[in-house]
Amino acid sequence: MKFIDLSQPLYDGAPNCPVHPPVKSEILRDHPAHGWRVELLTLSNHTGSHVDAPLHKIAGGASLDDIPLENWAGAALLVDLRGIAPDSPITAEILQKHLHGDLTDKIVLLATGWGDKRAKTDEWLHQSPYLSPDGASWLVEKKIRGVGIDHYSIGGMKDSINPVTHTILLAAGVWIVEELKFPPEAFRIPQPATFMAL
Amino acid sequence: MKFIDLSQPLYDGAPNCPVHPPVKSEILRDHPAHGWRVELLTLSNHTGSHVDAPLHKIAGGASLDDIPLENWAGAALLVDLRGIAPDSPITAEILQKHLHGDLTDKIVLLATGWGDKRAKTDEWLHQSPYLSPDGASWLVEKKIRGVGIDHYSIGGMKDSINPVTHTILLAAGVWIVEELKFPPEAFRIPQPATFMAL
Repeated sequence: MKFIDLSQPLYDGAPNCPVHPPVKSEILRDHPAHGWRVELLTLSNHTGSHVDAPLHKIAGGASLDDIPLENWAGAALLVDLRGIAPDSPITAEILQKHLHGDLTDKIVLLATGWGDKRAKTDEWLHQSPYLSPDGASWLVEKKIRGVGIDHYSIGGMKDSINPVTHTILLAAGVWIVEELKFPPEAFRIPQPATFMAL
Repeated sequence: MKFIDLSQPLYDGAPNCPVHPPVKSEILRDHPAHGWRVELLTLSNHTGSHVDAPLHKIAGGASLDDIPLENWAGAALLVDLRGIAPDSPITAEILQKHLHGDLTDKIVLLATGWGDKRAKTDEWLHQSPYLSPDGASWLVEKKIRGVGIDHYSIGGMKDSINPVTHTILLAAGVWIVEELKFPPEAFRIPQPATFMAL
């Protein structure tokens, strides 16, 4: 089986959602003094490539432990939105142009190009494209299983939009994967391909 | 595809290797005050179910970033050693009784039962069975790809043995997965089964 790594690297000071503490990686033991290397990691569970369980946004919602592993592997369609302008919504109208046929139980991956911009810049931190509430509703109507995006917040950073987009998806049982990275080969493989977020 | 979760849960105060700082999980934001839940995790990268890259024990050795993802998924054989006495070595002699035929490129999973004992007890912390250096050499001679065990240290906690076992494996390019947990169904499925440590 050939794998393509869609995850972002984690390291000391790695870019992250600015409302969380900075990512820390301290070397606790190292060669040659101790004969081994071990690091101490300090990071929010919403850091790097990660999933949002319903409990992340919905009081009393399912946690990761409540969701069978099988739900996190399935047929995925990559939506190539590279070139989209900063701060723009990914609407139902845009999605309809890219996604055709029966989407039931499919995983939809939104590639905005922001995964390649990952740095502590104003653009990456605050101007990412985002899935609009009407885009989220359209995906829920199509009965997709999960949705991924290459930025730390699928709903952007506006308090008027972000929680709405998240809640539409998570309340419908559609999981979210955030801060993916799509290397060039991800755009070249036949679709649907199997996506795993284990 | 049916998955069996072989990982141990992580939580605040989870049992871990006693030479590392305690595992911490602090809730940074929660319902209903903030409208979302986010945790801050503080843990060594050698905590819970984890892999040992060569760099863990060998100065200048390969780090995880140097190893292709494909190496972490393959055909695995589960060795049922449940009932083994505390503090006993898993020797070449024992392994030969359980593993037959061509082992080239196979993943060997050592089930000692210690995964079910996971607690901050003297038995779990200090009396686990361990792969002896001669057992490690036997596995290397058989050209296996990787080896897993259901305790945080495949070489036990004795300084005279632990680094030797680790170094025999890692220097030969045999990866190590530690602190697995084998639920009853893992013993019932046909072997070899596909193991993934992604």
